[in-house]
Amino acid sequence: MAATRAKRATTALSAGSRELQTRLATFERFLTRAVRERAGGPGRLGQALRYAALSPGKRLRPLLVLTACEAVGGEWKRALPAAVAVECVHAFSLVHDDLPAMDDDDYRRGRLTTHKKFGEALGVLSGDALIAFAFEELTRLREQGVPDARVVDAVRRLGRAAGAEELVGGQALDIAAEGRKATASAVRHIHTRKTGALMGTSLALGALAGDAPARTVERLHETGVMLGFAFQIHDDLLNAGSTLGTLGKRVGTDEARGKATYPAAVGEKRARAEAARIMKSVETAIARHCEKPELLESLIEATARRDR
Amino acid sequence: MAATRAKRATTALSAGSRELQTRLATFERFLTRAVRERAGGPGRLGQALRYAALSPGKRLRPLLVLTACEAVGGEWKRALPAAVAVECVHAFSLVHDDLPAMDDDDYRRGRLTTHKKFGEALGVLSGDALIAFAFEELTRLREQGVPDARVVDAVRRLGRAAGAEELVGGQALDIAAEGRKATASAVRHIHTRKTGALMGTSLALGALAGDAPARTVERLHETGVMLGFAFQIHDDLLNAGSTLGTLGKRVGTDEARGKATYPAAVGEKRARAEAARIMKSVETAIARHCEKPELLESLIEATARRDR
Repeated sequence: MAATRAKRATTALSAGSRELQTRLATFERFLTRAVRERAGGPGRLGQALRYAALSPGKRLRPLLVLTACEAVGGEWKRALPAAVAVECVHAFSLVHDDLPAMDDDDYRRGRLTTHKKFGEALGVLSGDALIAFAFEELTRLREQGVPDARVVDAVRRLGRAAGAEELVGGQALDIAAEGRKATASAVRHIHTRKTGALMGTSLALGALAGDAPARTVERLHETGVMLGFAFQIHDDLLNAGSTLGTLGKRVGTDEARGKATYPAAVGEKRARAEAARIMKSVETAIARHCEKPELLESLIEATARRDR
Repeated sequence: MAATRAKRATTALSAGSRELQTRLATFERFLTRAVRERAGGPGRLGQALRYAALSPGKRLRPLLVLTACEAVGGEWKRALPAAVAVECVHAFSLVHDDLPAMDDDDYRRGRLTTHKKFGEALGVLSGDALIAFAFEELTRLREQGVPDARVVDAVRRLGRAAGAEELVGGQALDIAAEGRKATASAVRHIHTRKTGALMGTSLALGALAGDAPARTVERLHETGVMLGFAFQIHDDLLNAGSTLGTLGKRVGTDEARGKATYPAAVGEKRARAEAARIMKSVETAIARHCEKPELLESLIEATARRDR
């Protein structure tokens, strides 16, 4: 079952190297076991939580964690609990964003959203439980030999990234901006928070698990934030033109809903140019700060290329 | 402003000693500063988060943290970030429990619930942000001189307590049990999770900050879980007979809604006897495992006596 899921996710990546596929398959097994054994227990809440956490996905954030660990010279398997933690925070944010009070979406990744399948109460509660589980799981870095001081730093970064100043704050701003004409800087403000913060944290957590110097952790964190912004621009360009089949959710929804997107704020041409400019500076930063950047670079390249 | 809030909360305790009042006033200042400076930022989300976290309350859980730290021979101020963390997890659980999809309450602690005042989206998001903030804040134990290994242990315990197996799981079971006749053991199962888990964690976190031996931390954790169950029985007995003025929320609501309560399952007389029996074993455990149990004992006694 985990293998099927891994295969589906790999296909979505569309150009993963053999090394990326190995890491992805190992991550899927690790995530499935972590969630089945320790998150949710029996009953409907457990079902809802597993439905949300184990739904097929690109697993971009966990792969960023693992390849960042490797890029700074670490053993990637050490970072697996951090990869699970960021994926669970990501899954929580999707479940809650889809709620009727928020974006009110019925489909996600080609399946019914969690609250449509299990009801709204379990939609809220499974998201809540996923946040808590992410932090519990993060402490398992200790069992991988990561020093306690680094685990504490990881918790602090993930707590900040998930909270009111970053991910959740970005979602609040996103909702508030709906239906208004947003400026380029307002959109950047929203997306560096809503998407960038968790990607930055993914790189930072990988670097922490890989025992990188504090300065490298910090630089990779900042680089990941910008990477997230570029990916969001890319997604928004896709959303404007995609179909349900390739994107797995309703299309043209951002426009219909009046979502603040960078292409809408500055035009498609300028948005493409800005994304390309950011990607170039991300590549430069990664090459400068990592001793073995190849796999991280190939992940980023494959992601940027998908669906084109 | 913080002083007014502290005064109100102290009054609610109804019989706090001077030492408890000192700790409460210091906690209120610490909480207010933490939330204002680091949680929520500007905008409506920040307002909603502060409304939820700084609303008047008994502050029972943070006082359990501080007095448990002292009971094991620690300096109580070291435990302040842990006290903030458990109060924020408690505040999150109240905000989400009050949502329309859950208990659908309009009033809490005598004021409009967060989602009634700020809308449902910000009700969900402010709760989410409070969980994340709790973990970020917990890492600040390090700045109080608590060793990293103990901070990691504290994060693991709080993650577990807040998640699907405990607090959130208890809420899911509570909702599922509505309108059905619950057995005594089913009610115990719900309340040791929904109320007990966070009280157990409060004692454990205080003991960790106070540098207690691992065995003492474990015993106090278990003791706190039982204490939470006894307090829940006490609350349910109160709820059945109280008025809006003393309880600050709609009354008789548990009965009207068919909530699973211990008095409903076994009758009022047996429920009182069971609560008294648990309180006795809690007292015994605390006296056995703590070197300076007096203030923790007086807090528990004052809480058990309130509103009688």
